[in-house]
Amino acid sequence: MMDIHDLTRSLTQRNDSKIVMLVADGLGGLPLQSGGQTELETAVTPHLDQLARRGVQGLSIPVLPGISPGSGPGHLGLFGYDPLRYVIGRGALEATGIGFELQNGDVAVRCNFCTLDQQGHIVDRRAGRIPTSESTELVYRLREIKLPSIEVFVEPVKEHRFVVVFRGEGLDGNVEDTDPQQTGVPPLEPKAMDSSSQKTAQAAKQFLDQARTILANEEKANFHTMRGFAAKPNLPSYEEVYGLRAAAIAVYPMYKGLARLVGMTVAGSPTTLDDQMDLMAKHWNEYDFFFVHFKYTDSTGEDGNFDEKVERIEQFDATIPRVLDLNPEVIMVTGDHSTPSFLKSHSWHPVPTLLVSECCRTDACETFGETEAIRGGLGHFEAKHLMTLALANAGRLNKYGA
Amino acid sequence: MMDIHDLTRSLTQRNDSKIVMLVADGLGGLPLQSGGQTELETAVTPHLDQLARRGVQGLSIPVLPGISPGSGPGHLGLFGYDPLRYVIGRGALEATGIGFELQNGDVAVRCNFCTLDQQGHIVDRRAGRIPTSESTELVYRLREIKLPSIEVFVEPVKEHRFVVVFRGEGLDGNVEDTDPQQTGVPPLEPKAMDSSSQKTAQAAKQFLDQARTILANEEKANFHTMRGFAAKPNLPSYEEVYGLRAAAIAVYPMYKGLARLVGMTVAGSPTTLDDQMDLMAKHWNEYDFFFVHFKYTDSTGEDGNFDEKVERIEQFDATIPRVLDLNPEVIMVTGDHSTPSFLKSHSWHPVPTLLVSECCRTDACETFGETEAIRGGLGHFEAKHLMTLALANAGRLNKYGA
Repeated sequence: MMDIHDLTRSLTQRNDSKIVMLVADGLGGLPLQSGGQTELETAVTPHLDQLARRGVQGLSIPVLPGISPGSGPGHLGLFGYDPLRYVIGRGALEATGIGFELQNGDVAVRCNFCTLDQQGHIVDRRAGRIPTSESTELVYRLREIKLPSIEVFVEPVKEHRFVVVFRGEGLDGNVEDTDPQQTGVPPLEPKAMDSSSQKTAQAAKQFLDQARTILANEEKANFHTMRGFAAKPNLPSYEEVYGLRAAAIAVYPMYKGLARLVGMTVAGSPTTLDDQMDLMAKHWNEYDFFFVHFKYTDSTGEDGNFDEKVERIEQFDATIPRVLDLNPEVIMVTGDHSTPSFLKSHSWHPVPTLLVSECCRTDACETFGETEAIRGGLGHFEAKHLMTLALANAGRLNKYGA
Repeated sequence: MMDIHDLTRSLTQRNDSKIVMLVADGLGGLPLQSGGQTELETAVTPHLDQLARRGVQGLSIPVLPGISPGSGPGHLGLFGYDPLRYVIGRGALEATGIGFELQNGDVAVRCNFCTLDQQGHIVDRRAGRIPTSESTELVYRLREIKLPSIEVFVEPVKEHRFVVVFRGEGLDGNVEDTDPQQTGVPPLEPKAMDSSSQKTAQAAKQFLDQARTILANEEKANFHTMRGFAAKPNLPSYEEVYGLRAAAIAVYPMYKGLARLVGMTVAGSPTTLDDQMDLMAKHWNEYDFFFVHFKYTDSTGEDGNFDEKVERIEQFDATIPRVLDLNPEVIMVTGDHSTPSFLKSHSWHPVPTLLVSECCRTDACETFGETEAIRGGLGHFEAKHLMTLALANAGRLNKYGA
């Protein structure tokens, strides 16, 4: 049975078209009161509404109805990778989120500093949530650890959290957590769950032994646990499955990292939407596909700040003319999931999604928004199909079968 | 995991109902200008609009969003056979397209006459596109070829193209093309890609050896290549999966052939829609299901002739009363894909689809067309589900589970 990428691989034809995917993270929302308007519907968005009249709208289901995705599966879906088939392990996602560039074969692990008593039992699984400044210093000391024939990277994250990455031959990520998820007991040993992860478990054990010595005299963070062992996920690249030279233009490390996992080139170090537009214009001739990520529609939703999310959407809207100036063949506007400020969290609600091209078969939608999208010509669709639609609209897919 | 046919097989109940599927090939379209009307929306279609008010409308996705199908996968979907699971190989489709009746176990091959130089290197992969009259004569001469224990059929197609079919025990279609896809090199040997295709590869080699002798003195077409080796696809029949005695009423060989592959009986040799209606009336009592194929909505779209496609749709509309006269329990109107004259090709756009029965749950649609279908009661659905809906509306499916 063929999957989407078997199809795109065999049907791809290259041309000079440009495709822009604008992702406003957590774009979809909810009204504060039943019957009211969502954040997107409340926002004044003249440019998005104009695109809605030119293009075709619909509702993107990030994974499956009712499933609220994290950033990983949310973006994999938008990139066209079935988020139920391709899973990014916790450790790999954490490393990606701090901008660590995983290589094939790397195994990443989430670590927590913890406090042991004199019997070696855990009394605090988070070492009193020591401040980042303190833990960063300890992380740097852990970099003294050397393992035979394996390269080790130790990277601070935040408070008691840090990341360890093992690099070497013959490593795999199926190792059990050492965090017992309770206090009053000792940490567990890192145990391999299959033969291909034996070497990783052994490396983890050696790492823990050395860490115990280095941290022995710390008052709070006198040891650490390891969990979420994960090999770098093996994702086929945009070049291979779509024949696209793809650039990611994002502010935050997580989204740069996710794009890197599918073979996109991370362009520049923008800090604002304007920077991002500058970068896209600058690299316009070097790439076929541009993924532009806007974070603040999600973070304001997570904060439960309806008005602030409305403002961020309006800020996002204001940047649309700069995209239109470049005259791409296909523009998409979407989100990786909904983040209603009413819920202060990611949600399962389908995401208003817009596709504009010369041959997109326009619908009757007049504005861009959750309610209007219901009568959009794209209907309800799983996010993983969006890239195929983009390729089709760009004239980049041949016919399937004769 | 059950597929659609596991369900229909186990749930089918027979009754006296009649189901008519009217396929206007390439029915869906695009406006010539954004915001304008499609061919179907432009056409004056009083009868289809009346059906739209009586029935339920929706948008059929031929394969998957963004995928433009050929006629093979397009029709398999409408017939209820997942077009990603059931694949008709190139050779089998070519044989089908010229009306050759493949039998189980047959292997069909697309052949091109080509020109070799004195070293045996290809100088023209299409033998100067010799006219059909010339190549037909050569094809008849190739019919002299005899192979031990294998029956051989050689059939003209057009210009430099012809078809060879091998019939015998133990043949399979996994043989590599002999066309090297370039000039200046000799044709390749036919190589089996698995053990079950060894005998086919050997037959192909013997055929080529004899053809080389027969064609030796031709100026242009002094040899031929073989490609797209394909066994007859093994499709379960309409009778077996749906309990339907099915008739295909089509003008063109390709659609008769596709219907034959799923076990439909090809009725008569109509040349016009009126002939087709006559045939349906004549055979009304002999069959439960009638597939009626109308070609010209596709061919005018492929020609990029918007006005002509509009006219053909109106011609198609005018025939509807003749279907209503027969009073079938279920009428469907659909297309195997869209062929917008704007694109001059098959496209991925979902196809307006209409289903009329006494219990179809009518929607609010007033006319039959792409935009109206968006608010139709069938929503967006993959074409492969249409047959199940037809069976249900005909009272031919029992309850699933207790």
